[in-house]
Amino acid sequence: MELQIAVSKVTKWASRESGDTLEMIERPTGGLSLVLVDGQHSGKGAKAVSNLVARKAISLLSEGVRDGATARAAHDYLFALHGGKVQATLNIVSFDMVSKTVVLSRNNPNPTYALTPDGVTEWDEASRPVGIYRHTKPLIKELPLSPNLALVVFTDGLPTAGHRRGRPLNVRAEIERLYQGGIASAQSWADELLALAMAADEQRPADDISILVVAVLPGPDDSHPARRLVLRMPL
Amino acid sequence: MELQIAVSKVTKWASRESGDTLEMIERPTGGLSLVLVDGQHSGKGAKAVSNLVARKAISLLSEGVRDGATARAAHDYLFALHGGKVQATLNIVSFDMVSKTVVLSRNNPNPTYALTPDGVTEWDEASRPVGIYRHTKPLIKELPLSPNLALVVFTDGLPTAGHRRGRPLNVRAEIERLYQGGIASAQSWADELLALAMAADEQRPADDISILVVAVLPGPDDSHPARRLVLRMPL
Repeated sequence: MELQIAVSKVTKWASRESGDTLEMIERPTGGLSLVLVDGQHSGKGAKAVSNLVARKAISLLSEGVRDGATARAAHDYLFALHGGKVQATLNIVSFDMVSKTVVLSRNNPNPTYALTPDGVTEWDEASRPVGIYRHTKPLIKELPLSPNLALVVFTDGLPTAGHRRGRPLNVRAEIERLYQGGIASAQSWADELLALAMAADEQRPADDISILVVAVLPGPDDSHPARRLVLRMPL
Repeated sequence: MELQIAVSKVTKWASRESGDTLEMIERPTGGLSLVLVDGQHSGKGAKAVSNLVARKAISLLSEGVRDGATARAAHDYLFALHGGKVQATLNIVSFDMVSKTVVLSRNNPNPTYALTPDGVTEWDEASRPVGIYRHTKPLIKELPLSPNLALVVFTDGLPTAGHRRGRPLNVRAEIERLYQGGIASAQSWADELLALAMAADEQRPADDISILVVAVLPGPDDSHPARRLVLRMPL
């Protein structure tokens, strides 16, 4: 099997700093974890908050702490530091090579979409952000690692794209449409969803937008495949 | 300007775990850092060592600790933990948005290549790995962030590729050749260097091979460019 991960990310229009932070780390027991955080508000303050939460989560995950405990700790840390006055959304996606599962931990009112050969599932049970309600817990979902599986995770800039013009993006409908075409590559999906959001916002995003697509696909026909990472960012 | 980062990485033939670890993290003051570690030996033990060193470095960098202090701390930590008996190479490449420079910190006998409009420079001053000699320091180089700049960093699986067959890869000559063609994309260079190493090792790498190429190129013609990350890895 091959794991594909794609992230497409823009800042709010006329804002230099994104309040969204995406970090990735290897798990000491094999596999890796992705952390996506959206800090309250936008600009510099939001960046500081999202950095703080992402850093705490990455640090714990890299030491082998389990995802649920990591999300709780990230909440407790933010809550203690800011006295319950600052919030952030937190999603953790982990590929765990011990349990051979993909694990989604969600502290985010926005849903996550899971795509399997059985269809599209919207994980949308009520979920609280971290930082403001005492003893906040993540919602956790786990799926066996098998081919033709994808998750689509995002910050609220995606579903709110187009709101300003009264034509909000229908994220679920777009994901259903992508699913009909089959899971070709994580990158093409992340790029297409970002392009739709940018179009809905007339190329001037009203909020930071981050889209994370992970996909498990049948492996390439290569006896000794490489691991490849590519990042492109404006300076 | 656009920053491009590409990593291509294979494990030693018939080895499940790579002793090389590559991690990337956002810097709290803007920009990002990449950490490439090669742990002593290969397989599980090497992975544990390289994870340990990479984790310590990433954790400090994410808190805003400067690169030189981070490399010293990673050394001290490994030295204290294993009493000077375990070594690892450590390279840190940072894009610092405050100083507007790219910073290379090297604890690695293998050279790093810097490509600028003035030509190819081999940074090959004697440099010690971390973990075994008391008070080991990194060698640090810094270049202003300007277009048409690239760095090529690698673990020793690249220069030793082909050794077994008595036809070692001439890394410098290959980089000079790539440079003649111009810096097109970081990804194509990382992939081409890996393909050459794989060919030299007859598709059965004698060691873990990791190649990191970073490039600063003129920016794309886009008023609000996105940040994009793509990872592909065998499961």
